[in-house]
Amino acid sequence: MPIKICSYTFEEYLERVQSFHGFAAPGVIIGGFMVDLAYQHLPPEGLFDAICETERCLPDAIQLLTPCTIGNGWLRVFNVGRFALALYEKQQGEGIRVSLNAAKLDDWPEIKSWFFNLKPKEAQDSQLLSEQIKEAGANICHYQRIRIDLRSLKERRNARFAICPRCKEAYPIADGEICLACRGEIPYLIPLSDWKKANSSV
Amino acid sequence: MPIKICSYTFEEYLERVQSFHGFAAPGVIIGGFMVDLAYQHLPPEGLFDAICETERCLPDAIQLLTPCTIGNGWLRVFNVGRFALALYEKQQGEGIRVSLNAAKLDDWPEIKSWFFNLKPKEAQDSQLLSEQIKEAGANICHYQRIRIDLRSLKERRNARFAICPRCKEAYPIADGEICLACRGEIPYLIPLSDWKKANSSV
Repeated sequence: MPIKICSYTFEEYLERVQSFHGFAAPGVIIGGFMVDLAYQHLPPEGLFDAICETERCLPDAIQLLTPCTIGNGWLRVFNVGRFALALYEKQQGEGIRVSLNAAKLDDWPEIKSWFFNLKPKEAQDSQLLSEQIKEAGANICHYQRIRIDLRSLKERRNARFAICPRCKEAYPIADGEICLACRGEIPYLIPLSDWKKANSSV
Repeated sequence: MPIKICSYTFEEYLERVQSFHGFAAPGVIIGGFMVDLAYQHLPPEGLFDAICETERCLPDAIQLLTPCTIGNGWLRVFNVGRFALALYEKQQGEGIRVSLNAAKLDDWPEIKSWFFNLKPKEAQDSQLLSEQIKEAGANICHYQRIRIDLRSLKERRNARFAICPRCKEAYPIADGEICLACRGEIPYLIPLSDWKKANSSV
């Protein structure tokens, strides 16, 4: 039986990953098996939101295989650094969490070596890695039933807006007198006209 | 001359938004004009990373029109609540930031009313809103040259990993003795078997 990832064949999914993510990244391919495993244990009908516990690769598998995206708010990333995702029913919060089972990686040395960064990238055997990923499928994953505490998910999307007196841009009133960017929470954006000044004063 | 958003006609872009984002959200359509405006002022060649200052809609415009996604790490969201994005050259950090110019929205009352949530969703005239967005295009946007302080962008992606002694999952060693999730930074994921216990003790 050909391997399927949700409604796609393995090869169709690879093409979609390549086109969206830019290359057939191991993490997005494993992520495909993880999303597929979650759906196998969710009710066939229902509206499911997603949580991703890492920024590494996995969000793209979710965005490719579910209706959830960062921009529509149905996917949220809480970057605690674990290679795991959860799909849960929007209203009640019940769902399935899928994680990579590190203990099982001993059977798949090339996956283990990639996942734990055990050797430099140029020493990885990408052909073998990709074969092991395809062969392992969801066998290296663990799933569990979970319930999301929906009250703890803060809703910023329908905030009321005001104009920040400093940058003159719209920002959520609830953030305070001035916007978070002007409070220094985005210190990495320097208007180029100010940049030489800032640099020359160093 | 037909309206173009990067390499797409307006209608082609709408279709892509519908398919990825789930519906033709005003914010993603305006976001298309914003990305297009940024590219008009960037050098024709080069590798550009993206920063988005909100989680609302805009990340999807970036993911649809640039090679940058959340999962490949070329798009980063710093959710300071401003409707703005920046595209910048990867190595040097120079680029263009595009924001919504709130002052110009007085000429486009339906866009203003949508953006500032001035009336309930059911009172919005979505046909008029969509016409005004198409007509306004990038005229409601402001662009500026910026330079990113690349040193301030922390790199978590190639972290070394260990097994968390509490949850037994892999996590970045740099996060400490146990993983961030076990330190309570992901309090919303409750294994269902534990859920009744937790709830009955309330």
